[in-house]
Amino acid sequence: MNLNKRGYRDVVVWDAERSSAERCDILVEGDKISSILPVGTLKPGYAYEGKGNTALLPGFVNAHGHTAMTLLRGLGEELPLMEWLQKRIWPVENNLDGNLVKTGTTLGIMEMLSTGTTCFADMYFFMDSVAEAALETGMRCGLSRGIVGDSDGSKLRENLKFARDFNGKDGLINVQLGPHAPYTVPFELMKQIAEEAKESGLGVQLHWLEAASEWSISGFEGKMTPEQYLSDTGMIDVPNLLLAHCVWVNKESAEFYAKDNVTIAHNPKSNLKLGSGTAPVPAFLKAGASVALGTDGAASNNRLDIWDELRFAALIHKGVNNDPTLISSSEVLKMATVNGARALGFNDTGLIKEGYKADMVLIDLDKPHYVGWDLENLVGYLVYAGSSSDVKATVVAGKMLYKDGSFTGIDKDQVIAESKAARCKLIGR
Amino acid sequence: MNLNKRGYRDVVVWDAERSSAERCDILVEGDKISSILPVGTLKPGYAYEGKGNTALLPGFVNAHGHTAMTLLRGLGEELPLMEWLQKRIWPVENNLDGNLVKTGTTLGIMEMLSTGTTCFADMYFFMDSVAEAALETGMRCGLSRGIVGDSDGSKLRENLKFARDFNGKDGLINVQLGPHAPYTVPFELMKQIAEEAKESGLGVQLHWLEAASEWSISGFEGKMTPEQYLSDTGMIDVPNLLLAHCVWVNKESAEFYAKDNVTIAHNPKSNLKLGSGTAPVPAFLKAGASVALGTDGAASNNRLDIWDELRFAALIHKGVNNDPTLISSSEVLKMATVNGARALGFNDTGLIKEGYKADMVLIDLDKPHYVGWDLENLVGYLVYAGSSSDVKATVVAGKMLYKDGSFTGIDKDQVIAESKAARCKLIGR
Repeated sequence: MNLNKRGYRDVVVWDAERSSAERCDILVEGDKISSILPVGTLKPGYAYEGKGNTALLPGFVNAHGHTAMTLLRGLGEELPLMEWLQKRIWPVENNLDGNLVKTGTTLGIMEMLSTGTTCFADMYFFMDSVAEAALETGMRCGLSRGIVGDSDGSKLRENLKFARDFNGKDGLINVQLGPHAPYTVPFELMKQIAEEAKESGLGVQLHWLEAASEWSISGFEGKMTPEQYLSDTGMIDVPNLLLAHCVWVNKESAEFYAKDNVTIAHNPKSNLKLGSGTAPVPAFLKAGASVALGTDGAASNNRLDIWDELRFAALIHKGVNNDPTLISSSEVLKMATVNGARALGFNDTGLIKEGYKADMVLIDLDKPHYVGWDLENLVGYLVYAGSSSDVKATVVAGKMLYKDGSFTGIDKDQVIAESKAARCKLIGR
Repeated sequence: MNLNKRGYRDVVVWDAERSSAERCDILVEGDKISSILPVGTLKPGYAYEGKGNTALLPGFVNAHGHTAMTLLRGLGEELPLMEWLQKRIWPVENNLDGNLVKTGTTLGIMEMLSTGTTCFADMYFFMDSVAEAALETGMRCGLSRGIVGDSDGSKLRENLKFARDFNGKDGLINVQLGPHAPYTVPFELMKQIAEEAKESGLGVQLHWLEAASEWSISGFEGKMTPEQYLSDTGMIDVPNLLLAHCVWVNKESAEFYAKDNVTIAHNPKSNLKLGSGTAPVPAFLKAGASVALGTDGAASNNRLDIWDELRFAALIHKGVNNDPTLISSSEVLKMATVNGARALGFNDTGLIKEGYKADMVLIDLDKPHYVGWDLENLVGYLVYAGSSSDVKATVVAGKMLYKDGSFTGIDKDQVIAESKAARCKLIGR
């Protein structure tokens, strides 16, 4: 067998460009999907056997997070937001270093791979360490250096240097600029970052109206609308703008966000857990805005499992708006795949298509809760009944990085042991 | 080894009567927990080895459902409630028979056992078949015959006969009476059912204010409060009243429900999916009412996995009320264990206590998302980061019915095959 080629026989393929699932054979060559073939074309013994009972979907994209916060999981549960940040999170983050960030990121990558995620967004610090963790594990990602305060511009310079060093690296990493939020970045610096993005062609990751208080602490109230701010800083015109949260965007402003270069990263669980609320996703979708899904950091979620987000995104908007017809399962799966990929600048991932990168998740349908699935209703089964425990294998750039509980190229026990030690160093236990 | 005795060595025990988790050895004799011992008391080789890295909790109680609806999963997704019921669900239910109900119930029991549930509530029809499925698999349950219309009283008589035949059977089954809802049961019959319950000592399962429309279709509007209805029918005084949903109870009336004989079965996911809304659970808890957790039927959920409900119950109320301090993880786990057990009349299950029935779930903490757990924060890790894929084993009445993906006494492949055939018979594919 040519190790550079890999087949997947009789798998049930779905992506956001198909109206229903289809049974196919898939051939992968190198890091790409080279052929989508009728079932039975590939020879047995040469391929992964889907047996007509394994779904093959584009790998999930986690469009917002701070991966190394796996080391801070469980800190300050059920505290009010500012007390949580100021007393429990920030003091610990002050003690992070590159090694700890690399360990925490690798732990998070394991969790994401085992739950079907093939690409993640990250805004944090010690980003070289985050990039190393991704390259060593073979994971795809969009990375930005979180810029807070930054009166001397050193963090922006660091973000730009990080882009020079890592943007496009191994075909796995896209670098974005990472202004943290309008309330932590001065107006003039935000303008400068927008200019740098336009000049360099880099995308931007930005926290946007996560909590109600941000209207006042960002200085919008009585002065300008948030949308005016995005226009005045030039942010709305950067090549690829990824706005995380958008919980407190006025429904009436949803149309402003319906632009080809803008994606909203919806983080339903984190927004609920921190008491922020629910983003007006039905209004964004109605306006034609692009919405992706994210987990946020493991200290406010507490799971880097995009299936959880699928379920919450599919259910909460029906409930809080008293309308069971809102947000279909296929819309939610589109958010979790191609929309996230586009937002991070990966234009050849997120679909199962010839010539696209082979970023894929394989899902076992031979389980009690899938009895009754067919090609038309499969997406509903996945979103409303499926879960990450159904993930058989996860493939990034053609390589099967996770299969049946085991990782390729990650020593699970060692990473867990190192993470426990890192946690002890940080928290004292 | 005496098969009638079974030890669990070095497990991390939590229940709703403990303020934090504790490492213990546990000895089970017959169907009971006979001793809770210091770690190291039990001999190796004689027991399940928890290695200090396995949580042992009371098994979860699914306090509201219609188990055989596993055969109807995925029907009519994202339709408005009445269209869903009238066009997709009721016509199919008309074709059910005892054999199909038994098959669908066994399928649901597999799903529940594999996700840590040891006891379930059920209100459906062909209840002898539901009871048979429970007895054959060894599952604990509280069962009621759903009474709708019933102008000739035949369904009530059937429910009472079912109680005579099965109440207390094998120590596994408690029977309740099952008036469906105030809008499907005439007032006088509801009074009669309440009287029968008081006379016989049976509990009652009742749907209560699931959707907004029930205020008008139940005839409350302009006539009486729902609470008045419960008082006037005598329902509020039956030995054990389990009220499913309670989404449209006025917050201000929460105190009315704070009674020793009343439990609210909160079904967060089903209520969201059908667009019903979110029950005022924080108000119920503040008033001191007892709240349990349920999945509802698999056609409106679509998973019989109580971990999903744990997660939703812990998160949605924080979000919709913009208060991250609402509903702690230990409150949620109490709902999912002892509160549900009491509601179904099982007063010696739901806690890990000497003399209590050995209904237990074992949870593997040796996973990436548990790094950082300790005895104080374990409950938060379980509720916010754990999931059913962490379940190692499920024990009902001392018998390990599920372990590492396999069932004792259930032929998984056969049940799945029979369920597929049953689904085909019902739906045509």
